[in-house]
Amino acid sequence: MNRDGNEEVTNNTFAIIRKAYEQAPFNRLLGFRLDRVDTREGQISFLAKPELIGNFHQGILHGGVISAVIDTAGGLAACASVLARIKGLQPEEATHRMARMGTIDMRVDYLRPGKGTEFRCVGTVMRTGRKVAVTRMELFDQEDTLVAVGTGAYLVG
Amino acid sequence: MNRDGNEEVTNNTFAIIRKAYEQAPFNRLLGFRLDRVDTREGQISFLAKPELIGNFHQGILHGGVISAVIDTAGGLAACASVLARIKGLQPEEATHRMARMGTIDMRVDYLRPGKGTEFRCVGTVMRTGRKVAVTRMELFDQEDTLVAVGTGAYLVG
Amino acid sequence: MNRDGNEEVTNNTFAIIRKAYEQAPFNRLLGFRLDRVDTREGQISFLAKPELIGNFHQGILHGGVISAVIDTAGGLAACASVLARIKGLQPEEATHRMARMGTIDMRVDYLRPGKGTEFRCVGTVMRTGRKVAVTRMELFDQEDTLVAVGTGAYLVG
Amino acid sequence: MNRDGNEEVTNNTFAIIRKAYEQAPFNRLLGFRLDRVDTREGQISFLAKPELIGNFHQGILHGGVISAVIDTAGGLAACASVLARIKGLQPEEATHRMARMGTIDMRVDYLRPGKGTEFRCVGTVMRTGRKVAVTRMELFDQEDTLVAVGTGAYLVG
Repeated sequence: MNRDGNEEVTNNTFAIIRKAYEQAPFNRLLGFRLDRVDTREGQISFLAKPELIGNFHQGILHGGVISAVIDTAGGLAACASVLARIKGLQPEEATHRMARMGTIDMRVDYLRPGKGTEFRCVGTVMRTGRKVAVTRMELFDQEDTLVAVGTGAYLVG
Repeated sequence: MNRDGNEEVTNNTFAIIRKAYEQAPFNRLLGFRLDRVDTREGQISFLAKPELIGNFHQGILHGGVISAVIDTAGGLAACASVLARIKGLQPEEATHRMARMGTIDMRVDYLRPGKGTEFRCVGTVMRTGRKVAVTRMELFDQEDTLVAVGTGAYLVG
Repeated sequence: MNRDGNEEVTNNTFAIIRKAYEQAPFNRLLGFRLDRVDTREGQISFLAKPELIGNFHQGILHGGVISAVIDTAGGLAACASVLARIKGLQPEEATHRMARMGTIDMRVDYLRPGKGTEFRCVGTVMRTGRKVAVTRMELFDQEDTLVAVGTGAYLVG
Repeated sequence: MNRDGNEEVTNNTFAIIRKAYEQAPFNRLLGFRLDRVDTREGQISFLAKPELIGNFHQGILHGGVISAVIDTAGGLAACASVLARIKGLQPEEATHRMARMGTIDMRVDYLRPGKGTEFRCVGTVMRTGRKVAVTRMELFDQEDTLVAVGTGAYLVG
């Protein structure tokens, strides 16, 4: 148990999830790093590389980068919350289950322009059922300013 | 007037919008092309490059690519619907107005896995007010299979 | 087959769905009528009774009435699309299946003030899977002015 | 200042908002009570009257009641956050400003069946700009079980 009372995802399951996220070509293109994940929350971070800019004149993040990281952080939390419940999970089954998971739908609310140099997005599970998980996401810049929030529904079983 | 009864955005305004979209670094990274835009609709297309893949094993588009193009196509339609109403719009004013526009929020519904080789996303304006425009978006693969739909609210004035 | 190419929901299944909607106390409180339903679309209509007003001074529909009818019309279309696929559906099974269905999430976009005297809301299925159905909804007043649109995800299996 | 560090909405402004919510016919039909409101949060509560039931067999709240209270609690928080910023606000101006406010769009996530006897919905402002306010909402039953969450964008200026 970590100090927030959430059981950490076991090292084995954590390693499988991390590998899947790090191997995804689009996550690599955007530079998404998986910082941490437990049974209730996951965090993705990235640097504001020049290629991620949307508005040439103002130097702010493209809305599509924001929606991408919000979807990714929500999916991470949903995935971990489901896999962590399975005792003695084997790598093959984990991979098989992850392949069948997917985002049903997602909402993104753009609160402030993404002007920072580094961002982190936290996905938190609101509820995990047998079929659907619902998560809320929050995107912060390096000064902990809240840049965007989101909500996602994920098919998990 | 085009054959659907929508006045085309004047060549001048169209050129300004196209330039803004083509200059955005993230649109270039993803290979987004502005196919067409009139006062009610806009279309963005792109090829399923290997870097846009989310699931390594299944070779399907990353959800973040889908949300990015849906936001972009909706913003294109919203932007054009507003700028087209201004008679004799000068380039400086167009640039100034576009810099103040932005997505308020967006919903994406993922209907089917993005397994195609080429995709096009159509954004359609549902209503343009003085402050807010609302658009619906549809993403199709090269066989016109509906892959995802979305809805966006944009601040336009 | 009706003229739009959609098979009509069989009379039996239609009657079961109609009964469930008409028995729901809240639908009766608001005066929701089930106008029609086939395998792809359903329509709910209602009169702008004084109790449904939100803004005392302006006499416009409460946003909660609009969200309620949008959820109801989407659920109707989702439900019918699923039940219509089951050949020889018996009333007991239909009731059992409907009891397990439910809205996962919903978005409502308020386009114009609801100032009319009578409204109708059409729910259209975008996709029905084994577990989830996605619908789009449109609310019109008696002059066919588009007042609001919505999107819903429904758990159907 | 209250103990959470939020300035309470002045008595005058609070009274104007309360009156507007209590006079809205649909709020009265559903039995919505305005419990409290400050510059960042507002709470609406109601009893699970028989007329608010959606599913006859299961005795659970209609989804439309849930979406209605979520919209109402978000609008309350958005409205208060804006009016509280205006020093020396006169009743006429408050009424005038409230009449021009409205929901742009809203998302509702239904997490668990609404089986309780009494419910309360808290709306919290995420950001208030000059034109748009964004709020998150949470609906609890009498045992503080989280039944639904939501997000709304409101036009405020």
